[in-house]
Amino acid sequence: MADLETDSGVLRELRALLREGEEEALAIFLKLVRPEDIADWLDELSAEDRRRILAALDEESAGTVLADATPSIRAELLDELSPEEVARIAETMPLDEAADLIGDLEDEEGEEVLQHLGDEDEKALRDLLEYDEESAGGIMNPNVVALEPDATVDDAVARLRTVGDDAVTAAVYVVDASGRLLGVVRLRNLVTARPGARLGDIMERDVISVPVEADQEDVADIVEKYDFLAVPVVDAEGRLLGAVSVDDILDVIEEEASEDIYKMAGSSSAEEESESILHTARYRFPWLLICLAGTQLSTTVMSLFSHRVPLFDQISIFTPAIMAMGGNTSLQSSTTTVRRLALDTLPKNRYPIHVVREILTALIMGLGCGIAEAVVALALGHNPLVGVAVGLAMAMGMSAASLLGASMPLILDLLGIDPAVASGPLVSTINDSLGLTIYFTVATVILMQFG
Amino acid sequence: MADLETDSGVLRELRALLREGEEEALAIFLKLVRPEDIADWLDELSAEDRRRILAALDEESAGTVLADATPSIRAELLDELSPEEVARIAETMPLDEAADLIGDLEDEEGEEVLQHLGDEDEKALRDLLEYDEESAGGIMNPNVVALEPDATVDDAVARLRTVGDDAVTAAVYVVDASGRLLGVVRLRNLVTARPGARLGDIMERDVISVPVEADQEDVADIVEKYDFLAVPVVDAEGRLLGAVSVDDILDVIEEEASEDIYKMAGSSSAEEESESILHTARYRFPWLLICLAGTQLSTTVMSLFSHRVPLFDQISIFTPAIMAMGGNTSLQSSTTTVRRLALDTLPKNRYPIHVVREILTALIMGLGCGIAEAVVALALGHNPLVGVAVGLAMAMGMSAASLLGASMPLILDLLGIDPAVASGPLVSTINDSLGLTIYFTVATVILMQFG
Repeated sequence: MADLETDSGVLRELRALLREGEEEALAIFLKLVRPEDIADWLDELSAEDRRRILAALDEESAGTVLADATPSIRAELLDELSPEEVARIAETMPLDEAADLIGDLEDEEGEEVLQHLGDEDEKALRDLLEYDEESAGGIMNPNVVALEPDATVDDAVARLRTVGDDAVTAAVYVVDASGRLLGVVRLRNLVTARPGARLGDIMERDVISVPVEADQEDVADIVEKYDFLAVPVVDAEGRLLGAVSVDDILDVIEEEASEDIYKMAGSSSAEEESESILHTARYRFPWLLICLAGTQLSTTVMSLFSHRVPLFDQISIFTPAIMAMGGNTSLQSSTTTVRRLALDTLPKNRYPIHVVREILTALIMGLGCGIAEAVVALALGHNPLVGVAVGLAMAMGMSAASLLGASMPLILDLLGIDPAVASGPLVSTINDSLGLTIYFTVATVILMQFG
Repeated sequence: MADLETDSGVLRELRALLREGEEEALAIFLKLVRPEDIADWLDELSAEDRRRILAALDEESAGTVLADATPSIRAELLDELSPEEVARIAETMPLDEAADLIGDLEDEEGEEVLQHLGDEDEKALRDLLEYDEESAGGIMNPNVVALEPDATVDDAVARLRTVGDDAVTAAVYVVDASGRLLGVVRLRNLVTARPGARLGDIMERDVISVPVEADQEDVADIVEKYDFLAVPVVDAEGRLLGAVSVDDILDVIEEEASEDIYKMAGSSSAEEESESILHTARYRFPWLLICLAGTQLSTTVMSLFSHRVPLFDQISIFTPAIMAMGGNTSLQSSTTTVRRLALDTLPKNRYPIHVVREILTALIMGLGCGIAEAVVALALGHNPLVGVAVGLAMAMGMSAASLLGASMPLILDLLGIDPAVASGPLVSTINDSLGLTIYFTVATVILMQFG
């Protein structure tokens, strides 16, 4: 893209300036580029260069850069700043972003930053920090334009002139004397309305709002469904507390997708917060230990059958194939199920039919794979009964794997547990021992009966 | 959530109306609810009820319902409609959504729909349908407000009054006589500007636009990075063609996340388009066949060693554990890598250090798991050398798996192939045979040397 190519030319210039070591020239250069671009470039620079850039930025740009930097770089840069410096930067940011920044600090340091803030900001931020980070309260911006129904379009425009860039301006909210949300006037309708019109006359009354404790995923669903630019947030009495704008929703959607993807692999998106190996291992190791404990089941199955099944040497060489095919089938079923739950396209009354569809799909594919594998086994000169056992066990194992893969996320969902964990190491381990048990049982029965 | 609870009450009412069979009452009821909600409810109703609801809706609501319905239900409903009915519905939709709808039809049927449209819409839609569905052109709305620099704020407001709900209104674009994009006036700045001000004087000149052929993922990155409500789309000469609004970007982000997630499991998000089992199997089966072919490698490895390694019976029962731990470690490494590539937080110059970090992380975890597994093997009364071989092979296998898992997505990315396929069945299969080869080689060497 043209835009991205230009970027790298500018990045080359920045590198040259950093080499020359003229901090004043650097500061001037940084004023000419967008802070969002600077945040992008940080990934490609050394820690020392990042520190110099941060020092050369004005507070407002530093705020944008900190908000947009990758988590591990943000943490590194925050370490460089004194609480007073962080406070000065936070004062230029939208309140929701400032709260996120302070929330990232150690409790003690965050407290110091809060004490360096103006009284009004301090109070607003303390309130925001009370809310769960993943709730509507945690992502809302309290800085909204709210007027009473008797105010005119002109009054609203006058108010919009006074609010800063850090306010929500996609809509003007209409509230009663006690702050209860009565209606909304979208910016577009405000532009085209008669300047003297009363807001109470032109507002939409059927306004959709979210409770302050709503989960951010539900807030995202609403903004996405109705194509809103912002959604108002209210307390239990219906009083307007703030609004969540669509740009915050973009972040929520990426965050929730990341969370699901990491969970499906037995880790957590929290591992992005630091580049340290031990930090990463902390999130992944517990899953591997669960998996390791689970593999004892598979080892036990193999061990039990090793003395009982005839031709164990011939039988055992197909165990990797049986396990791999079961694992992949289960992954396909669980992934589809987890994704459809996340996208809300699988209503509860369709759970049973969904599982049946998945099993039938796997059965068809399993028969195809089973026949192919049986032919391979025969072609390799194995005992024909071994071929039959392998083929039959593969078809049965794949069907069982898909039953497990499709139903586990649904069961977890009904229990109120995040279904994404069901695609992870946990289920694949159960799946392995199930597949092996089916295989060795089928092989034992066939070889004993017909061998 | 309060909102969702209300929904289900309304859904109960709808069900009651459907049972009563009064189509007129149904039509009145449907006018009182939001079409976005109707689209949500369709999932939970029978095909016959869905057909009745579609018939009872006015064209504009039907357009929203069709745009928001799940892909398989949209296909089902489109089958019910004549080309003329589809055309009447399409005329009420934003042009980008209408193009998506017509693009979903068979070529012949789409052609018939186009011929039933008004000339202007027909031409605009034919132009849109030329663009790649996943490009800026494929997701843009050509219906934007564009004026020359001499126009005033009042002129812009007058134009905004005349455009329908289906236009992009987040900003007014300023173009020269030949349509070249010169600047942008955000709606917010338009509201607060003096009515007589020239657009040329108040516009932002440093406007970021995207080329019409840009990939939708790059467009999404730009909107997200700069927190835009819309981004203008231009041709090679810089002429304004339309704009992509943030609500379309929300869909792109979910779509791209879905695509990655499905690819990582060896399927495709296209499987959502139909509920048919064969349709689903068509997307999944090729991956399973690749995987099945790959497992022949594992079978060969097992088969070769079965005659050579001492104590094969004892050794082979640990193969599931070796495979499972390698598979999970590789999945953790590849998932992190794929996600960081998707989120653009891994610049090319950091690829080598990323791979090294992943291997070191896996080595630490592998040593932990290897020691634990060796202890288990000894406790179960196996030959001590078998225990040592299992533990050592697990640590080595997990490190190798993470090398493969971290580097494969990067190699694919450098080759211009979507890295998400690297987390799928393909790599897990290579991984299995690699892990087994390491295991049996280590076991053979240890047992031969010290046994």
